[in-house]
Amino acid sequence: MLKVAIIGTGNLAQHLFDAFSACPTIDIVQVVGRNTKALGHFKKSAATSTDFKNIPDATIFIIAVSDTAIPAVSKHLTHTNGLVVHTSGSVSMDALSLHHRYGVFYPLQTFTKNRKVAMNSVPFCLEAHDEADLDLLKKLAGKLSEKVYEVSSEQRKVLHLAAVFVNNFTNHLYHIGKEICDEKGLPFEILQPLMQETLDKTEQLTPYDAQTGPARRGDSETIDKHLKQLKNSRYKKVYEVMSESIGKLYGEDTNPQHF
Amino acid sequence: MLKVAIIGTGNLAQHLFDAFSACPTIDIVQVVGRNTKALGHFKKSAATSTDFKNIPDATIFIIAVSDTAIPAVSKHLTHTNGLVVHTSGSVSMDALSLHHRYGVFYPLQTFTKNRKVAMNSVPFCLEAHDEADLDLLKKLAGKLSEKVYEVSSEQRKVLHLAAVFVNNFTNHLYHIGKEICDEKGLPFEILQPLMQETLDKTEQLTPYDAQTGPARRGDSETIDKHLKQLKNSRYKKVYEVMSESIGKLYGEDTNPQHF
Repeated sequence: MLKVAIIGTGNLAQHLFDAFSACPTIDIVQVVGRNTKALGHFKKSAATSTDFKNIPDATIFIIAVSDTAIPAVSKHLTHTNGLVVHTSGSVSMDALSLHHRYGVFYPLQTFTKNRKVAMNSVPFCLEAHDEADLDLLKKLAGKLSEKVYEVSSEQRKVLHLAAVFVNNFTNHLYHIGKEICDEKGLPFEILQPLMQETLDKTEQLTPYDAQTGPARRGDSETIDKHLKQLKNSRYKKVYEVMSESIGKLYGEDTNPQHF
Repeated sequence: MLKVAIIGTGNLAQHLFDAFSACPTIDIVQVVGRNTKALGHFKKSAATSTDFKNIPDATIFIIAVSDTAIPAVSKHLTHTNGLVVHTSGSVSMDALSLHHRYGVFYPLQTFTKNRKVAMNSVPFCLEAHDEADLDLLKKLAGKLSEKVYEVSSEQRKVLHLAAVFVNNFTNHLYHIGKEICDEKGLPFEILQPLMQETLDKTEQLTPYDAQTGPARRGDSETIDKHLKQLKNSRYKKVYEVMSESIGKLYGEDTNPQHF
């Protein structure tokens, strides 16, 4: 039985809690948070507490709070002999170095309230100060997911940056696509098969080889037409900068007046 | 039986041909193209020809060539009474107005050589000068796909622009994500569940509501860190412009020194 304490009550804490709860070999000893209302989610099947000073002993303490709250929260766990880990993509493991045993338990996924995520395909990025503790984290992550990676703090920082591109920025492109459709009374669903195929292709081709479109082929006539169509100056700028980046990547610097 | 002639031998012509060939109620009377080598793909199950001047009669003539070649190719079809359509996202229907009957048969998807696409989920965007011909195109598209839309030339132009954002530009973001991973020896597959979830979320939430990340929450500290991490000046520019666009969209104009 792995005894786990969860500190934090946000989206990630809830998703981890639900996944742990479904594992018969994991015992959630307590969920700790300031927000009594948020603790409600956990009460049905675990002990909860607002008292950070008296967290019961556990094998692994999982700090699932915002990046800025990690130092304050972790101070309450300096006396334990258990393994203390945070779940952040961008905070170094050394932020926990005042602990006896410490590491990182970072699920590389976007978690949304009231939206189930298939935890068994979430990549868990693990790091620990001690080799045996890394094995312990692998054991824990392996109960939830088939995808377990050893990732250093430096690699994790870079992953977090890559995630901003493929998640946050991609989502914004989806938004722009939807806005363009909305304006002309077209349903956004009309774009979804294309979005899916764009993603699916990357399993067979590299994105480098899969690239198509006016910027890829240096088609400045179409680029011009598109820029004229765009009324929103921010989206025009996005179009220009993305096209410039693609054009330069493929050596198609054919249209200096744009860029 | 619907008699269809295909003019063109590229990716789209091949994908349409394969889909038509699987329909027992569609008869491909001929595939016409200049490129004898490319005609090889079609020879196994249809008549092929390099002679544009003697295309046999058909109910529908599908011009699946590059945008710039449409005027020259369509000239060879001025004497027919059949319905002449092109398959382009960005060319107006009126480019075919010298024909007796004309329209547009535009599948909104990215077609890749040697890669099967589930044609039954491809949105077909249809337009015809005549109401009865629109019905004829709906009948043809309905044999291939469950998703059939009536889309005007103006709407189609806009769709093509939206497709550049959600397909070409998204793919470039995937490329940047991969490059960032490559540099640190991380496998690109580690990002793929996140990419999939980013897409899946748009079926439940609008991309506007699904937006997360440092730019969304006006977290200029993280934005600063990320910009410092990026060495490639083009990707830095992409990061800045995307963050600016997101920030402005949500009224988080917190970081004027960046933008």
